[in-house]
Amino acid sequence: MIPRYSRPDMVAIWAPETKFRIWFEIEAHACDAQAELGVIPKENAEAVWKADGVDFDVARIDEIEAVTRHDVIAFLTHLSEIVGADEARFVHQGMTSSDVLDTTLNIQLVRAADILIADLEGLLAALKRRAYEHKDTVRIGRSHGIHAEPTTMGLTFARFYAEMHRNLQRMRTARAEVATGAISGAVGTFANIDPRVEEHVCEKLGLEPEPISTQVIPRDRHAAFFATLGVIASSIENLATEVRHMQRTEVLEAEEFFSAGQKGSSAMPHKRNPVLTENLTGLARLVRMAVIPAMENVALWHERDISHSSVERNIGPDATVTLDFALARLTTVVDKLVVYPEHMLQNMHKFKGLVMSQRVLLALTQKGVSREGAYTMVQRNAMKVWEEGRDFQTELENDADVTAVLSKDEIAEKFDLGYHTKHVDTIFARVFGDA
Amino acid sequence: MIPRYSRPDMVAIWAPETKFRIWFEIEAHACDAQAELGVIPKENAEAVWKADGVDFDVARIDEIEAVTRHDVIAFLTHLSEIVGADEARFVHQGMTSSDVLDTTLNIQLVRAADILIADLEGLLAALKRRAYEHKDTVRIGRSHGIHAEPTTMGLTFARFYAEMHRNLQRMRTARAEVATGAISGAVGTFANIDPRVEEHVCEKLGLEPEPISTQVIPRDRHAAFFATLGVIASSIENLATEVRHMQRTEVLEAEEFFSAGQKGSSAMPHKRNPVLTENLTGLARLVRMAVIPAMENVALWHERDISHSSVERNIGPDATVTLDFALARLTTVVDKLVVYPEHMLQNMHKFKGLVMSQRVLLALTQKGVSREGAYTMVQRNAMKVWEEGRDFQTELENDADVTAVLSKDEIAEKFDLGYHTKHVDTIFARVFGDA
Amino acid sequence: MIPRYSRPDMVAIWAPETKFRIWFEIEAHACDAQAELGVIPKENAEAVWKADGVDFDVARIDEIEAVTRHDVIAFLTHLSEIVGADEARFVHQGMTSSDVLDTTLNIQLVRAADILIADLEGLLAALKRRAYEHKDTVRIGRSHGIHAEPTTMGLTFARFYAEMHRNLQRMRTARAEVATGAISGAVGTFANIDPRVEEHVCEKLGLEPEPISTQVIPRDRHAAFFATLGVIASSIENLATEVRHMQRTEVLEAEEFFSAGQKGSSAMPHKRNPVLTENLTGLARLVRMAVIPAMENVALWHERDISHSSVERNIGPDATVTLDFALARLTTVVDKLVVYPEHMLQNMHKFKGLVMSQRVLLALTQKGVSREGAYTMVQRNAMKVWEEGRDFQTELENDADVTAVLSKDEIAEKFDLGYHTKHVDTIFARVFGDA
Amino acid sequence: MIPRYSRPDMVAIWAPETKFRIWFEIEAHACDAQAELGVIPKENAEAVWKADGVDFDVARIDEIEAVTRHDVIAFLTHLSEIVGADEARFVHQGMTSSDVLDTTLNIQLVRAADILIADLEGLLAALKRRAYEHKDTVRIGRSHGIHAEPTTMGLTFARFYAEMHRNLQRMRTARAEVATGAISGAVGTFANIDPRVEEHVCEKLGLEPEPISTQVIPRDRHAAFFATLGVIASSIENLATEVRHMQRTEVLEAEEFFSAGQKGSSAMPHKRNPVLTENLTGLARLVRMAVIPAMENVALWHERDISHSSVERNIGPDATVTLDFALARLTTVVDKLVVYPEHMLQNMHKFKGLVMSQRVLLALTQKGVSREGAYTMVQRNAMKVWEEGRDFQTELENDADVTAVLSKDEIAEKFDLGYHTKHVDTIFARVFGDA
Repeated sequence: MIPRYSRPDMVAIWAPETKFRIWFEIEAHACDAQAELGVIPKENAEAVWKADGVDFDVARIDEIEAVTRHDVIAFLTHLSEIVGADEARFVHQGMTSSDVLDTTLNIQLVRAADILIADLEGLLAALKRRAYEHKDTVRIGRSHGIHAEPTTMGLTFARFYAEMHRNLQRMRTARAEVATGAISGAVGTFANIDPRVEEHVCEKLGLEPEPISTQVIPRDRHAAFFATLGVIASSIENLATEVRHMQRTEVLEAEEFFSAGQKGSSAMPHKRNPVLTENLTGLARLVRMAVIPAMENVALWHERDISHSSVERNIGPDATVTLDFALARLTTVVDKLVVYPEHMLQNMHKFKGLVMSQRVLLALTQKGVSREGAYTMVQRNAMKVWEEGRDFQTELENDADVTAVLSKDEIAEKFDLGYHTKHVDTIFARVFGDA
Repeated sequence: MIPRYSRPDMVAIWAPETKFRIWFEIEAHACDAQAELGVIPKENAEAVWKADGVDFDVARIDEIEAVTRHDVIAFLTHLSEIVGADEARFVHQGMTSSDVLDTTLNIQLVRAADILIADLEGLLAALKRRAYEHKDTVRIGRSHGIHAEPTTMGLTFARFYAEMHRNLQRMRTARAEVATGAISGAVGTFANIDPRVEEHVCEKLGLEPEPISTQVIPRDRHAAFFATLGVIASSIENLATEVRHMQRTEVLEAEEFFSAGQKGSSAMPHKRNPVLTENLTGLARLVRMAVIPAMENVALWHERDISHSSVERNIGPDATVTLDFALARLTTVVDKLVVYPEHMLQNMHKFKGLVMSQRVLLALTQKGVSREGAYTMVQRNAMKVWEEGRDFQTELENDADVTAVLSKDEIAEKFDLGYHTKHVDTIFARVFGDA
Repeated sequence: MIPRYSRPDMVAIWAPETKFRIWFEIEAHACDAQAELGVIPKENAEAVWKADGVDFDVARIDEIEAVTRHDVIAFLTHLSEIVGADEARFVHQGMTSSDVLDTTLNIQLVRAADILIADLEGLLAALKRRAYEHKDTVRIGRSHGIHAEPTTMGLTFARFYAEMHRNLQRMRTARAEVATGAISGAVGTFANIDPRVEEHVCEKLGLEPEPISTQVIPRDRHAAFFATLGVIASSIENLATEVRHMQRTEVLEAEEFFSAGQKGSSAMPHKRNPVLTENLTGLARLVRMAVIPAMENVALWHERDISHSSVERNIGPDATVTLDFALARLTTVVDKLVVYPEHMLQNMHKFKGLVMSQRVLLALTQKGVSREGAYTMVQRNAMKVWEEGRDFQTELENDADVTAVLSKDEIAEKFDLGYHTKHVDTIFARVFGDA
Repeated sequence: MIPRYSRPDMVAIWAPETKFRIWFEIEAHACDAQAELGVIPKENAEAVWKADGVDFDVARIDEIEAVTRHDVIAFLTHLSEIVGADEARFVHQGMTSSDVLDTTLNIQLVRAADILIADLEGLLAALKRRAYEHKDTVRIGRSHGIHAEPTTMGLTFARFYAEMHRNLQRMRTARAEVATGAISGAVGTFANIDPRVEEHVCEKLGLEPEPISTQVIPRDRHAAFFATLGVIASSIENLATEVRHMQRTEVLEAEEFFSAGQKGSSAMPHKRNPVLTENLTGLARLVRMAVIPAMENVALWHERDISHSSVERNIGPDATVTLDFALARLTTVVDKLVVYPEHMLQNMHKFKGLVMSQRVLLALTQKGVSREGAYTMVQRNAMKVWEEGRDFQTELENDADVTAVLSKDEIAEKFDLGYHTKHVDTIFARVFGDA
């Protein structure tokens, strides 16, 4: 986790204070359930709640752990210092450390998912607003980086909206994947603890009981969770790449917002660099790198080994914090993106009329020219535009083979931009519904 | 795709013949829709279906492509050889190659998903059968490879069932991710083709129209698809790792079925190696390696570049063929796994009674001994079993601190195996429902 | 391995015929050594060479393997069919299958490395030629996609030369990594075979004896090998990305060679797409995906498990064949790249004189203006060029603060292009030596 | 970077204080060279060294950066606060930020490499010591987790020694890969700064001048560096996996050192878990996850984009800190590993005499029995040992087909363990030289 690429709410989820608070809640709720079942005395269960509201002393817990080399035992020792050794003696009874640790991890991931879902919703709002703003702002569509046919900037925003909306759905599914808890004991048999304790704790903490656990909650859930983060990160890279292309000097159809006082370069004062989206490209790689280790974590030995733990200590915070930051940064980029419609038109007309070539091709075919013949006619005129800077419409008007089939008016009609934007409303209705 | 790790049905999905057949269907249905809209003559649309049932000549298409260097044009040329140049002249009108290629890829992935779903259902049936067969077969549960507490072989099968059932759900979601088609033209604006053509083609081919495409169907869908394959592969590795551990000489709780005539080693005739599950471990890596490239494919330049294409030509067939093979192989392994219940008991008793230590710990605590005190008492006796091969129950009976708290009968009661299996039915009900 | 992305020489290395030929040579050389040591009769060793020059019958071997389920035994059986069962009875004595398989894999990787080294040398020759051709062809250097300061196309080629030359060194190191063989028996102890057999076989086959093997040659060697391929692939992506940028419509500083008859688009006849370099971008992902599985292969269980094998059956051929193809394709792209020097100048002058801003900044500082003051002066004039299309030199001449420090002649002198190219020869000497 | 998995020396390399110190040295040495060349006044160059020994105020620099949003400018501003604005006005002249940043990154990586090299040397010393200690400690070699033939624990240590020694060589190569610096200006042309400045700075800082840079040092170097870390991490996983297997309850041939007071489990007091090596398995995944992003960083746009930067801010510290910690932890594990030779013998004799099957097979063949015949004879007796717990030697003595070929003495001779260890010295000489 890199401070400059993090935001406080997500960071807080992974703070030791938060972790110990969740541990406490799990233990306290478990005691309640154990008391309800008559396994431990009610007064002991109640006594545990004395620690409710207490800020646990992280330094003290670390101190104990330095001796015991076991984090949960260190916490329980500290808890008994607060609650009283006698009152606390039934805490954790029948449970294993992983019951606490794994349920806690999932609570943290669920909370992280909630933030990421809100992030995506914010991004979607920005994309939608910009899509409608530029619904009819014509720009050239490009395949292979080469001018193809006209489209609109609104469609560009709309397609990223649709992609991010899919990501919102995926994120909700990923949240459900990890919204489980387990209080099932050393190997998951509930030998020393009644399954009703698990049910109670999970209900109180907004989780589903894991149907079958071993010592741990199965890691295919986490693999699916981090894979989803990787997909979302890749979509961020997709949008970032579009902005970077738009801002390059020769294109300049848009620029990231450049605040007063900001310096693009220590050496070249004129420069305005798309550093936010370049940064997002890098952040996407960082999020994505969690995917394979999360998958390698699935195959644990027998009822668990602890190889997954160090991986999750890293990717749990890092991937969620980085993705949260990236989504927020991307939302700002989209929100404030400076769009240059006039540059879009200039670019489109770099090769005069050439982007209309397919329309002409079709018109020739529909008049009965063979596909191959039409292709040849169009290509030879197109090449003159491309190589010599001629005007496509004029060249067609001077090509006897073409004019033998198409009248001057028919040719002119092919150069109407409205032809290309006539279905924008249809597509918007598909993407945004009736809004 | 490695022939020895492939099965014919999945391979057939990726054959050129299948591809051209799908291309044909897309073009023919598109012509129908165009005719219905009055864009092209009905007789031309009907004429295209003359090629229905014809086996396309792959060699001939390759030959044409060698000249045109464009696969779709090569196919269309060949199609016009069959249908007649004049009759075929409206085929592909208003479409771009990617309309055909991307819709085809998604159809292939959907078909692949259907096979994988069936594979998972087969695996689930085998796991369920073996789970009930060994519901009460006691074996030691292990964390960190170290004996922990008893569990049952049925629970082992059941947890893999639950994991694979989650994978089944994920696979269904992944199928839906890629079940879209697009006939939207060069940059996705439908400039040259009515959106109703897309709707008709998709309906005929069992797809949803892609709400907004560019020249291509957005690749976040495919990233999510291949990420799902990666998660499933990781679960395969998980189950395979369990079997490999069970078969190692010192454990020998199960063996892969060993057919008559099979040779384990050219040098050591006695060997029976878990080569199928070792192989599955490797195959899992192969499937998983598709995940990152699929994510790198998401960020295409503007309305498309073709960098994704070579990646998909590889991972499309390779990841699905390998996963299909792996699921089938794993199903056989599960189905025929030779389980040795008696070895399970021998292993559990390697350190006599030691696995019951937690029960004794709890019993001491419940009798009022402090956690720390109980831990110390149990540990000192446990160590004698571990290091000197003593019997845990006997040691406890000879420990005055212990017997001051627990009677001999109370100690004996802690060594009852039924204590550990009492919730197996509860767990089975969670996993398998009322079955 | 995808046929369209493969070349015959590399494919041949991975053919079954090649594999069996290498197996034969290992076995025959081992027999020679065994005979020399007096372990087996000389006449039996000599008899094995009867199979020299024989084309092994792959179908027959497959047939035997279908029964024995063991590839090496199947081959040995077939070999004895050729040599005679009695004569062949000492073949493979004291060896284990892996002795043959692992030594063979390394021979294949060494041969693959030799091809890749030759590929890199070919690419370097093309890069060097183009570098000298365009040593003085001025183009704008860009950071963040934004115009920075002038450079030359020759420097662009030269930097890719330097990068690929490092890759050549890496490839040679990688070749040495895998140029080992092992004939050390079932667990690497030479219990049943003298180490001198290994020495003899390795010497004959151009390998070093693996200093210590288990049943297998250690896989860290192969991890390092495939990691190197991944680095090279990433450099290919780097060069390919440069070409793709140069070819985009708004830049158009270079184009991939476009052969007569080639069609860029089925719909847009004018299009010339950088499909080769886009393809190379995808191929780079394919090569790179071998890296992590190769690393996951390192941790084998005890003296070996076979999880690595299926991975290597795939990545061995796929990564080398794809990289060979990619290097050859890239060499062609470089060799035939159509460079447009005039477009380079047009692009550089899009914002008139702006790229000289740093020079002016420096000149002001050297005349005693503070860094901050100079920055402000330059930036305010730069922004007028950027936003209003003015000429930078003229603006500076009209800025009283500037002219208070710099004379008109001094300003003019800052706009000399030669200033930026004065060290090109120095850099070329560093990169190419005295050539 | 996770504090619990880090060590102070490596962490210090990545501290802001270290970074600013290196920045200072680069700038000050560059001023010296500029003064020597007569570009700036000598007194200004000398004045910069006033800041030598000053602890830069990180908080103040952050404060300035919050305004300028540019880290190098913020540092230079702070430096001029120390040195004096007038004296400092030539600092950084002709340089670009990346000259400082990239040269600094490489210095940090070189220092990190030096620590990792020392780590590897420490690990090698431990491995060598343990190898000689257990040179003749016989244990069973296993392939596929199944008993194969005897080997020794010394050979196990020796093979990890050989592997780690290769890693030492690789690490030295990786160090050389990144031991370059660049002071070449905005696009690498030295337009505003003489190449001799770069030469001077590099010489002072122990680097080679980068032969040709753009705005940045080419990232193939860093990709190769991090790939090497990934290979080393995979070797760590390899050794860790061996220990984990050895410690599992049924094998128990070795245990990680277990300090007094350490608790293996909060619930099961007897447990001694191989948590260090399990942790190392996870740490290996963490290091390895840097590899692909480092490779994705290679393809920067034109003369640079900044997408690599956020990646390196993470993987630079994280991968080196984690690997340093892992190597140190592994060295402790090796150093203190508790080895149980008697358990090794017990395990080897689990199936009495079976591991000698290949010797018997060979003996039969050498007496003239066909391979197939010998295989059958050995297999039928081996299976009785495997399935019924018989003694292999006895079974052979009772097999008339066997005794028709081999005398009782000849059979007995095959069960001599010395046969398997006779080449241990040879192998040690290969691995350790004459030591």
